[in-house]
Amino acid sequence: MSTEPPVPETRVLAIASHVVSGHVGNKIAVFAMQSLGCDVAALNTVQFSNHTGYRQWKGSRTSAEEIWSLYEGLKQSYLDNFDMMLSGYVPGAASVETVGRIAEELRSRTASNPGDFFWVLDPVMGDNGKLYVADDVAPAYQKLLSHADVILPNQFEAELLSGVKITNMETLEEAIQVLHERFQVPHVVITSVSLSHSDHPPASLSVIGSSRTSTGKARTFKIVFPAIDCYFSGTGDMFGALMVVRMREAVANAPDAEQLLLRRAWLSDDNVEAVDLPLARAAEKVLASMHEVLTKTCQGMEIEMLKAEETLDRRGVSPEEREKGLHLLKSRAAELRLPRNVQSLRSPTIAFRAVKM
Amino acid sequence: MSTEPPVPETRVLAIASHVVSGHVGNKIAVFAMQSLGCDVAALNTVQFSNHTGYRQWKGSRTSAEEIWSLYEGLKQSYLDNFDMMLSGYVPGAASVETVGRIAEELRSRTASNPGDFFWVLDPVMGDNGKLYVADDVAPAYQKLLSHADVILPNQFEAELLSGVKITNMETLEEAIQVLHERFQVPHVVITSVSLSHSDHPPASLSVIGSSRTSTGKARTFKIVFPAIDCYFSGTGDMFGALMVVRMREAVANAPDAEQLLLRRAWLSDDNVEAVDLPLARAAEKVLASMHEVLTKTCQGMEIEMLKAEETLDRRGVSPEEREKGLHLLKSRAAELRLPRNVQSLRSPTIAFRAVKM
Repeated sequence: MSTEPPVPETRVLAIASHVVSGHVGNKIAVFAMQSLGCDVAALNTVQFSNHTGYRQWKGSRTSAEEIWSLYEGLKQSYLDNFDMMLSGYVPGAASVETVGRIAEELRSRTASNPGDFFWVLDPVMGDNGKLYVADDVAPAYQKLLSHADVILPNQFEAELLSGVKITNMETLEEAIQVLHERFQVPHVVITSVSLSHSDHPPASLSVIGSSRTSTGKARTFKIVFPAIDCYFSGTGDMFGALMVVRMREAVANAPDAEQLLLRRAWLSDDNVEAVDLPLARAAEKVLASMHEVLTKTCQGMEIEMLKAEETLDRRGVSPEEREKGLHLLKSRAAELRLPRNVQSLRSPTIAFRAVKM
Repeated sequence: MSTEPPVPETRVLAIASHVVSGHVGNKIAVFAMQSLGCDVAALNTVQFSNHTGYRQWKGSRTSAEEIWSLYEGLKQSYLDNFDMMLSGYVPGAASVETVGRIAEELRSRTASNPGDFFWVLDPVMGDNGKLYVADDVAPAYQKLLSHADVILPNQFEAELLSGVKITNMETLEEAIQVLHERFQVPHVVITSVSLSHSDHPPASLSVIGSSRTSTGKARTFKIVFPAIDCYFSGTGDMFGALMVVRMREAVANAPDAEQLLLRRAWLSDDNVEAVDLPLARAAEKVLASMHEVLTKTCQGMEIEMLKAEETLDRRGVSPEEREKGLHLLKSRAAELRLPRNVQSLRSPTIAFRAVKM
C-alpha cells in the first residue's frame, strides 16, 4: 500500500449529514477524504442515530441559520481557507441556499486565481423516481448550479435538474447538454445510469461524465461496470468524497496541469477528447475503489445475515417483528465496510475504463 | 506500512465533542480508531466551528436528553452491539450521568461474558489547575468510575477525582491507590505528569499507569518521554482513541489472552509485574504514535506561523488585532496533523519503554 497521499495538502469543507452509526454522508465522506490525506472540515447538516433507510431513527437537523453560524465561526478565526468544497445531503431549500451562499463567498475570494476553489456538488434529492426532499429543493439547486464545478446527480436527479426525462442515451446526452449550457455546469457526472444498451453486458451499470468545451458543448464518456446485487446506502456520498480527491489528483497529473490549475473549474482545452479528460481519469479511479469496497461489503453481508437470522430465531419473535428485524439487520449488514478496506481507497486496481459515447 | 488492522473487527461507541474544523474530540478520535480498523459510532456531544482554545467559536451543544435519544435510536435498530466505548468531553453533569447510564446498559448485557464490553473513560474537566466544566461534573464522574475499565485523567483531573493533591511521586501513587480502591477503577493512566524527578532528563514528561491486583493494590509503571515545546489541543482525545485500540491489541497478544478476554476489565493475574501489563504495552505504543504526530505537527507549525505573520502584516492590522490574529493563526497551526501521518498511527517506532516506579 502506498503511503504517500495522492494529493498535496488539500483543505476541504464537507457539508453533509452525520450518522452516529454506519457509513453515509459525512460519516463516510470525511473518513474517505482524510484517508487520502485531506484536511477535512466537517459541517454536519443533521445528527441522526442511523441513516433513514432503516425506516426509523432518532436525532435532529441543523437549521439553515446554524449552518451559516458555523461557517461564520470558521471565518472569524481564519478557518475558511478552503481549497475545495463537497456538499451532500442538505435538509430543505433554505439550507441549500445557505450552502450556495457559503460557496459563493469562498469563491469570491479567489477572483484573481479562479482555480483556487473547486466545488463538488452532489444534489441529493432522491433516487429511482422517488423524491426524498421537499418540492422546493430542486429549484433551489437549479439556482446554484452555475456556482458548482462538478455536479454528481444520479439519473433521477439529473432529470429533476435538467427537466429532461431520461429514457435512452439520446435523452441522457440532451440532459447533460442542458446542464452544461442552460445551467452553466462545467463538469457533470451522472452516477449509476441503468439504461439498457446493446453493447453492455447484462447486469451492468454505467457512469456518464462530461466536461464542457469553451462553447458549452458536452464531451461525453461512459464507464460501464458490473452491478452488485445488494442494496447499499452511502454509495453516492463515497463517490462524491473520492471525486474530490481524484479530480484534484487527475488535474495535477494532466499534461497541461499548470494552466488547468489556474482556470475556473480546471476545464481542459477544447482539443482534449472526452476519454482523455481529467474527469474521466478521476471517475475511473473512484469507480475502482467503489467496486472493491462494495464487493467486500457484499461478501461480508451474507455471513452477517446468517448470524442475524439466528439471533431473531433465538429470540422467538412474531412474524411482523421478524420482518422488521430482518430489515434492520440487513440495513446494518449493508453498511459500507470502509475502515478495514482503506487499501481499496488508496490503491485500487483500475478495472473499468472510460470509453467515448 | 502494515495494511492489516492491529485488532479484529471492533465496534466502538465514541461519545465526545465534534468540531467542524481541526482535530480535537471525536474529530480526531473517530479518524484515529477508523484508521486502525475499528467500526466507530460517533455520538457528538457538541458541534462547534472550532475548539475553544481559539477563545471564540460558534455552534451548539447536544443536550443530555438528545444524547439519550440518539442512544435509544441505536438500540431500537440493533445498532448497540458495541465491544468498546470511549467517552471524552461531555458538557455538564446531566450529560455525564447519561453517558454513565449508556455504559451501564451496554455492560449489563454482557453479564455472562464480562470481558465483552470495555469502557475507556477520559474524564475531561480541566488542565494545569484550571477547571473548564461546572463544579458538579467532578462528583458526577466520581459516581461513574466503578463502571469504567480504564480512566485517563491528566494530573489535575486525577486530583479532582481522587481528592489527593499531587505534589510528588508519593502523592501520585496515593491518588492512584485511591482510584483503585475507593473508586474501584481497574486501570488508571495519568497522562502528562510534570513532576520533577532526579532520574528524569530535563524537559521531560511522564505517563504513569497502573492495573490493580485482585486485592485492589496498584501496580505502577511510568513511561518518560521528551516534552515538545508547543501547545497542542486534542492530545488527550488522541491518547484515548489510541488506547482503545492498543489496549485490545495488547490483551489479545498477552500470553494469557484467552483468560484475560473473558474477565471484566481484562485484568491480569496478580503475578504479572507492572512493566509486563498489557496496559504498559498499550501505553508505550500510544505514546510512540503521539510523539511522532506531535513532532511532525510542531515542525509544520513554524512554516505556517511565518506565513501567518506575513498575512497579518500585509493586511496592516492594529496591534490588538495583530495579537488576536496571531493567537488564532497559532491555534490553527497547532492543529494535530493526523490525516497525512497515518503511518505514525499504524506503525509507530516504540522509543519510550515502561519502567517500574
